[in-house]
Amino acid sequence: MAKGFLLVLSGPSGSGKGTVSAALMEQNQEIQYSTSVTTRPPRVGEVDGENYFFKTKEEFEEMVAQDQLLEHAFVHTNYYGTPKEFVFQQIEKGEIVLLEIDVQGALQVKNKYKEAVFIFLLPPTMAELKQRIIGRGTETPEDIETRFTNAFKELDFVGEYDYFVVNDKLEQAVEDIEHIIAAERLRVKRKSDIKKSLVEKGEI
Amino acid sequence: MAKGFLLVLSGPSGSGKGTVSAALMEQNQEIQYSTSVTTRPPRVGEVDGENYFFKTKEEFEEMVAQDQLLEHAFVHTNYYGTPKEFVFQQIEKGEIVLLEIDVQGALQVKNKYKEAVFIFLLPPTMAELKQRIIGRGTETPEDIETRFTNAFKELDFVGEYDYFVVNDKLEQAVEDIEHIIAAERLRVKRKSDIKKSLVEKGEI
Repeated sequence: MAKGFLLVLSGPSGSGKGTVSAALMEQNQEIQYSTSVTTRPPRVGEVDGENYFFKTKEEFEEMVAQDQLLEHAFVHTNYYGTPKEFVFQQIEKGEIVLLEIDVQGALQVKNKYKEAVFIFLLPPTMAELKQRIIGRGTETPEDIETRFTNAFKELDFVGEYDYFVVNDKLEQAVEDIEHIIAAERLRVKRKSDIKKSLVEKGEI
Repeated sequence: MAKGFLLVLSGPSGSGKGTVSAALMEQNQEIQYSTSVTTRPPRVGEVDGENYFFKTKEEFEEMVAQDQLLEHAFVHTNYYGTPKEFVFQQIEKGEIVLLEIDVQGALQVKNKYKEAVFIFLLPPTMAELKQRIIGRGTETPEDIETRFTNAFKELDFVGEYDYFVVNDKLEQAVEDIEHIIAAERLRVKRKSDIKKSLVEKGEI
């Protein structure tokens, strides 16, 4: 029985990681989303342990202190984080857990859990990256410039990742990630009992 | 521009590596076979530098002494080996070079060039492995037993490899290897100029 793995799909603003993640999950329903911990109050219909693990600020800070998170961030007025326990339990069961996250978060995960599979999503060109950031339409010229500058800087971290995928055509990007998943399922390092299981399957 | 890589397809006697290699090459004509060096005399129609690099015994031994081979073996009355220079030149050009080889040879390559991609081909069961060894029909019962015992021992080395592929159905085994190749083409470590090439492709 092979262990699963944590698939970290990351990239700068405008790389399209949200769109690619959604299409990947749509076409590969056996993949699980990583369930985050948050201090944000539940919205109507949200279920604890499904949409999020809902925690108080004190509980969250205790989790940080106990090193129970693979990464965490403070966004606007709330904490968000990725719980080790949930991810590791799924992996032990053989599941593939997808964490779609920004570059800073991915680097935190790398620091704590380098056994994850790290994919850096790239825009096809810098011009296209800028267009995508502008295309969101909700930001001021200063916000756009800041996002673009940050995205440009974040490209320096691609060397920390295992794989790069260029998000030019969505379907090709999804297919590239599917190849990576298929290959990573065949990793010897996650299947320690190859000879034993082979011997048990057939008389000698 | 990404570098290519050496794909070492290996496994015990009866794993079917010859059949799988042939099917893989048939369906992926961009993959190159590694050209071996040999002291065996050329047969009619064989071309030096295409079928083999033909060398004298003295030249071959000099290559060994100069550490110019990734692996070598003495088979019957002749030497065979894999020349570093040829493999590395192809890799620099971005090519994928396939080396189909027994487990002992693969371990020699691993020792000298761990950057290669190592795939261990497994039979579906030990009973099937025995059937395949018997199915060759050209060996004595003692030869069959020796081959089977060796194959069984060689399974211990799977931990030295990157990937395992179970050769139950040929088409599935070929597809698994194609996934591995597709994923390995997306390796960050073989493409050092990702940011540079992205910037050059589009104005900022």
